[in-house]
Amino acid sequence: MQSETRRAEGFSDAVFAIAITLLILEIKVPNQGQDSLVNLLLRQWPSYLAFITSFAYIGIMWINHHRMFNHITQCTDALLGLNLLLLLGVTTVPFPTAVLAGHLHGPDRRTAAILYNGTFVLIAVTFNVLWRYAVSRDLLEEDVRASAKKVSRQIMVAPFLYLGCVVLAWFNVHGSLFVNLALTLYRAFPPHLVRERIPSSRDSRPAA
Amino acid sequence: MQSETRRAEGFSDAVFAIAITLLILEIKVPNQGQDSLVNLLLRQWPSYLAFITSFAYIGIMWINHHRMFNHITQCTDALLGLNLLLLLGVTTVPFPTAVLAGHLHGPDRRTAAILYNGTFVLIAVTFNVLWRYAVSRDLLEEDVRASAKKVSRQIMVAPFLYLGCVVLAWFNVHGSLFVNLALTLYRAFPPHLVRERIPSSRDSRPAA
Amino acid sequence: MQSETRRAEGFSDAVFAIAITLLILEIKVPNQGQDSLVNLLLRQWPSYLAFITSFAYIGIMWINHHRMFNHITQCTDALLGLNLLLLLGVTTVPFPTAVLAGHLHGPDRRTAAILYNGTFVLIAVTFNVLWRYAVSRDLLEEDVRASAKKVSRQIMVAPFLYLGCVVLAWFNVHGSLFVNLALTLYRAFPPHLVRERIPSSRDSRPAA
Amino acid sequence: MQSETRRAEGFSDAVFAIAITLLILEIKVPNQGQDSLVNLLLRQWPSYLAFITSFAYIGIMWINHHRMFNHITQCTDALLGLNLLLLLGVTTVPFPTAVLAGHLHGPDRRTAAILYNGTFVLIAVTFNVLWRYAVSRDLLEEDVRASAKKVSRQIMVAPFLYLGCVVLAWFNVHGSLFVNLALTLYRAFPPHLVRERIPSSRDSRPAA
Repeated sequence: MQSETRRAEGFSDAVFAIAITLLILEIKVPNQGQDSLVNLLLRQWPSYLAFITSFAYIGIMWINHHRMFNHITQCTDALLGLNLLLLLGVTTVPFPTAVLAGHLHGPDRRTAAILYNGTFVLIAVTFNVLWRYAVSRDLLEEDVRASAKKVSRQIMVAPFLYLGCVVLAWFNVHGSLFVNLALTLYRAFPPHLVRERIPSSRDSRPAA
Repeated sequence: MQSETRRAEGFSDAVFAIAITLLILEIKVPNQGQDSLVNLLLRQWPSYLAFITSFAYIGIMWINHHRMFNHITQCTDALLGLNLLLLLGVTTVPFPTAVLAGHLHGPDRRTAAILYNGTFVLIAVTFNVLWRYAVSRDLLEEDVRASAKKVSRQIMVAPFLYLGCVVLAWFNVHGSLFVNLALTLYRAFPPHLVRERIPSSRDSRPAA
Repeated sequence: MQSETRRAEGFSDAVFAIAITLLILEIKVPNQGQDSLVNLLLRQWPSYLAFITSFAYIGIMWINHHRMFNHITQCTDALLGLNLLLLLGVTTVPFPTAVLAGHLHGPDRRTAAILYNGTFVLIAVTFNVLWRYAVSRDLLEEDVRASAKKVSRQIMVAPFLYLGCVVLAWFNVHGSLFVNLALTLYRAFPPHLVRERIPSSRDSRPAA
Repeated sequence: MQSETRRAEGFSDAVFAIAITLLILEIKVPNQGQDSLVNLLLRQWPSYLAFITSFAYIGIMWINHHRMFNHITQCTDALLGLNLLLLLGVTTVPFPTAVLAGHLHGPDRRTAAILYNGTFVLIAVTFNVLWRYAVSRDLLEEDVRASAKKVSRQIMVAPFLYLGCVVLAWFNVHGSLFVNLALTLYRAFPPHLVRERIPSSRDSRPAA
């Protein structure tokens, strides 16, 4: 059933690619106005911060999704459904990003930051449900069942980390965003993972 | 002629992926205003309902399209044309979705709901025409002709179900939308299909 | 050098898919207003006409592009460049489409129709230049050189047909659009082509 | 680990394709107004110039990215990260393009031109970092290490050329844009490269 998982991967890749590229549309061009363009552009820094954080988050979701599907060799309808649920979360990201960018200067900044960090919690939870389903239904290839447990532990932390950002947002909006960005970047390129690579059957051809 | 059907599949996948991801652009960020952001966001619930229903619908169309093309091994120009007609319907979805989201609170909610459910009827009809054409022209692989009849029966129901939603919308707008969403979710993950999987030659390699 | 042409094909497919899906964004949701939603929607018929014509045009360009690249087995930088020029034309389509939709009721409808039909002339010319370049540089596979001449003759007509639409637009705006749509649909599914299929090496595996 | 680089290539291709296609959305349809549509359209020439320059730039980035990944056969997490950084730059392009188009007539045209050319500098720098990383970590296939040096020298020039455009923008805004466009077109199709093709293992099947 590899071709099913392959096509699901291809579809997911396309959705990730489109969602990550649509983010820029939420950054508005400032109108010629009462201030210089330089100042108007600088005053939009919340838009840029939200853009970069969301870009990094979708980027790492793509990398992790890829790692996960490298291990999954069988497909069920429920897996396709959970994958769609995950993609639902990913395509949603431009909305809380735009809400955050539009309200980070205003009186409702706390609401915007909680919505933003909360979206990341929900996506991380869906990601865990998808992975646990694949593990419990034995959809993985045989030789990775050991390393699969390691993956399980790694991705289990993410919902709690972003939940921490939600709580932090209640007390300190900007702080929660910077912690979120730092977390996302750290998760994308953890020092140890760069060296200690998870073996995967698809990648097992000896490097030239 | 597999490469033709493959490229048509790839093109269709891309269109499905883009249409499903563009849906989020129709949800507008509420302006800082006379009310709190929480209330403004909550008042937009028709947008979220329409977004989720359309997302689920395009998602299930993608899964069904995939199942259908798994059986189709030959390609004709007419098939490409019917497929484009189907994609025309799919790319259209963001428009009735936005109309529904914009008018579900207003006096024209009935018109919007009929347009919305009606779009689903048209797409389901096109889907049936495409499949019946492929069956009648013998474009399927040989060993699935029996199971093909089952597929025919299954997808034949969809236009009537959504037609029911159109009729219901005349009497009860919200009801028609909830029935539509329930139908779509049920069709995406029917209990029996999860177990009783349609055999497909592409998927026939024994699972590891 | 097949992998080069394959990747160019993949990239082109993605651009076609995105351009064809973005068209719907140009159809605006009418605001609740002084008239009923039904009337407001009906009054937008130029938008729907422009949408369908552009959709059909990009769809047929995709099919033809696919047929053309089925014959091309070698790649040069100039071919990539000409292909980008063609894609430039294709991605442009949403703009004249929106101009046409916005001005078909107004005093400038003639300008809009000339711009719209003129875009199709330019794309058709680029298409011919690309194909003639591939033929003249011997980038085709060997056994199709005979049928290639037939392709040359077929696509050579397109620029003149759309040029006819430009001229017609000067005298009759609506007429030019309906002729354009009829031409596009006819070119997409010409009766004879459906039967008399161009042989292609990639498709040469005997059908089951 | 070829499948990893392949999937990164596919994802990158999708992002390039979407970013290049979204550019057209920044060109606005002029409203029926105090002037004829022809004049209104002509007055928008900065939008068209910015559109074409950005299209050519993303196009050449795609071609170069493709050439680069033709040589890369191994993948590390850091490579994926640097690739995401490059894609971050590419998806950003519609924003400075829109700023330039909106301010090329106004008093802030110099700021807009510096932002625009500056974006190209940053992307070119990222491109060099990515390539140098791949070279230094020996991720290339063996037989191209000699030609890799040539690639290094070629792409090393780009940041300086676009930096020249930034400096020129301070003195002459329009001049900097035309030099930028000329540079981009020249880099896309350099006379010598068309003949003297970089050998690549993937392309090594003898041409028919």
